[in-house]
Amino acid sequence: MSDRMSRRKLFGLGAAGAAAVGAGAVATRALVEEPTVAHAASISDPVSFYGEHQAGIVTPAQDRLHFVSFDVTTDKRAELVELMQEWTAAAARLVQGKEAGTFGTVGGVPEAAPDDTGEALGLPASGLTLTIGFGPSLFDDRFGLAGKRPAALADLPKFPGEQLIPEISGGDICVQACAHDPQVAVHAIRNLARIGFGKVSVRWSQLGFGRTSSTSRAQATPRNLMGFKDGTNNLKLEDVELLRQQLWVGAQDGPAWMTGGSYMVTRKIRMMVETWDRTSLGEQEAIFGRDKGVGAPMGKKAEFDTPDFAAKGGDGLPLIKNDAHVRLAHPTTNGGARLLRRGYNFVDGSDGLGRLDAGLFFIAYQRDPRKQFVPVQMRLAKTDSLNEYIKHISSGLWACPPGMRDAGDYWGRALFA
Amino acid sequence: MSDRMSRRKLFGLGAAGAAAVGAGAVATRALVEEPTVAHAASISDPVSFYGEHQAGIVTPAQDRLHFVSFDVTTDKRAELVELMQEWTAAAARLVQGKEAGTFGTVGGVPEAAPDDTGEALGLPASGLTLTIGFGPSLFDDRFGLAGKRPAALADLPKFPGEQLIPEISGGDICVQACAHDPQVAVHAIRNLARIGFGKVSVRWSQLGFGRTSSTSRAQATPRNLMGFKDGTNNLKLEDVELLRQQLWVGAQDGPAWMTGGSYMVTRKIRMMVETWDRTSLGEQEAIFGRDKGVGAPMGKKAEFDTPDFAAKGGDGLPLIKNDAHVRLAHPTTNGGARLLRRGYNFVDGSDGLGRLDAGLFFIAYQRDPRKQFVPVQMRLAKTDSLNEYIKHISSGLWACPPGMRDAGDYWGRALFA
Repeated sequence: MSDRMSRRKLFGLGAAGAAAVGAGAVATRALVEEPTVAHAASISDPVSFYGEHQAGIVTPAQDRLHFVSFDVTTDKRAELVELMQEWTAAAARLVQGKEAGTFGTVGGVPEAAPDDTGEALGLPASGLTLTIGFGPSLFDDRFGLAGKRPAALADLPKFPGEQLIPEISGGDICVQACAHDPQVAVHAIRNLARIGFGKVSVRWSQLGFGRTSSTSRAQATPRNLMGFKDGTNNLKLEDVELLRQQLWVGAQDGPAWMTGGSYMVTRKIRMMVETWDRTSLGEQEAIFGRDKGVGAPMGKKAEFDTPDFAAKGGDGLPLIKNDAHVRLAHPTTNGGARLLRRGYNFVDGSDGLGRLDAGLFFIAYQRDPRKQFVPVQMRLAKTDSLNEYIKHISSGLWACPPGMRDAGDYWGRALFA
Repeated sequence: MSDRMSRRKLFGLGAAGAAAVGAGAVATRALVEEPTVAHAASISDPVSFYGEHQAGIVTPAQDRLHFVSFDVTTDKRAELVELMQEWTAAAARLVQGKEAGTFGTVGGVPEAAPDDTGEALGLPASGLTLTIGFGPSLFDDRFGLAGKRPAALADLPKFPGEQLIPEISGGDICVQACAHDPQVAVHAIRNLARIGFGKVSVRWSQLGFGRTSSTSRAQATPRNLMGFKDGTNNLKLEDVELLRQQLWVGAQDGPAWMTGGSYMVTRKIRMMVETWDRTSLGEQEAIFGRDKGVGAPMGKKAEFDTPDFAAKGGDGLPLIKNDAHVRLAHPTTNGGARLLRRGYNFVDGSDGLGRLDAGLFFIAYQRDPRKQFVPVQMRLAKTDSLNEYIKHISSGLWACPPGMRDAGDYWGRALFA
């Protein structure tokens, strides 16, 4: 009931709007009866590349990430479309654990560079998913896409306290590679970059490990590098109705090429882990509003207990402080807004000042960032007591189109049509 | 037979020398009957922290690495010794999958910072090994160790073509953390850094994945980021006699505190992967002197076939070129010198020039770098045709003392005694 309430609040849907959602759902039902939740049975197995939605969003979060942002360097639309077709063909092979091209390392001829770089030969598919997104900058005047830019792909506002580094922010196109083996994820991105030589160049890339959210109830909640369970309240693939409300772009949302897609926000969040590690346990728990060991909200016993934001302690003060992270981020205090997060921990060596360069590479999918990530993050940026220990240094916003229908489909087909 | 020959050549041992090795072996036999090869039965299990040698050297190479180099910031020898004791106690707990301290996240009191940072709570031991090494700079006049510097810990010469970055080279103390779960390796290093606050600071650190060598015949040979099998001819834990000759420091080698230890060389080797990926398969194979698919030496069928360096092709030229990597690095062309390598692939994002910042973090253990790494690398640096595609950007040399005998022992005990 509160889910339905929150959808209406968030997306401004009255009865008529809800009916439109229904109609949209009917329109796509011919393709896929129910939201496709294809995922690997074991960590070695392949994940299906085809479906109503792209794999790598609700797919149970794999343990490793290689994320890349590309700048398009060609100014020819036809070359870009050709690249999308080549990438899609390679991706469909890679997620099956095959070489990137049919003319690969094994069976290649000596005179030509191989169609595959070889470092994943002999490794299984490892649950690899490749998820593509288009950044706002792609919708400028280079490729005639300005009229196709979704309203929901509005530039993110400047958030208080962020210290974004332009060189590792934004980009025209991103690919999120997730797998259970980092060598498989790295191999996939590296081969896409190789195929794209002369048409795109790597703007930035990020490795991650130790998924910091669960996207399925079958997964235990993992821990971030502050040592706390992260993503307890995450949207999960089993929340089919919530996903329809808050994750997938509906036919009535527009533009048509995004129906069945989702918007991704990426934020590289550096953690001041050395400072954090010298903070008392009580202070750490007060900042999160949760117990560090079990992950229970303050005053509760178990991780999945509902936080009681009204509860007061013996001193008459709120058990969960007003500036605690769980209070500020919780859907019940944000008009029902939720996100499907699938971020990763990172350690990029050290920073030259005697500290580990470590933190969270935040990834969140949603139906409309203007109603979900932006207001929630604006609130956090203004008042979250966690801000003393974190710094946002990179930002990305991406329109991720729907899934591949069949082998004739390609990344961005409806966008470029 | 050739193994015995090569030992004599390498270490200048005549019959008398060989007898001395025998005596040394007898002297340590009371401790451990045979070289201890304790390793985990499954990738979740712990590896023993105790033994004649440190774990993490012949231990079957785990899949993930977090390597850290520390500068000692205290000038008090007693504080350094105290830190070694604290670190050893923490390491002994960490490798069992326990929290770093007894007063950790779970059961900690609110007023104090926890003894453990928490991000590995609930994760198994994951085969974690922690291996300590002491760099040449530790043996200056700060701690009264100048007289204890091993002759074998001689500064590495400058190699042709290397472009070392001082900020990510050297250091007073290193710790190599290897595990099957990167979160476990990162957690261990981070807690050692936390414990060392005020006494040491992180000089540089490096994450790695996809071990690029096998250290046991039970492991398949993995591939480096050039797509070739790497470490086919590596020293392996089953080569007990070869390890005695080429890996472990003998009692006659001196100094006494290094008996049962080994010397580690680390080199961060950036690969120009984009250039490599545009090189023909034939050229790639000629550079390595091996087939890319199977890993067989040129002219042979299988990976472990012995290379025939005399074989010529129909054109009268050597099948394995004179500047091929396998020829220049092979023990038969280096007076029998061998290494136990256990390096890792790395991708540190991108380099700002549209390229992946990727390569190999090379780690090699040996009995005496002056007779093993240095001459082999000098030859490679001068003539290896691979040099066009690689660049050495970081270097480290470390004296790794013998293993922990029991719970009363600590890292560097014999050095500081």
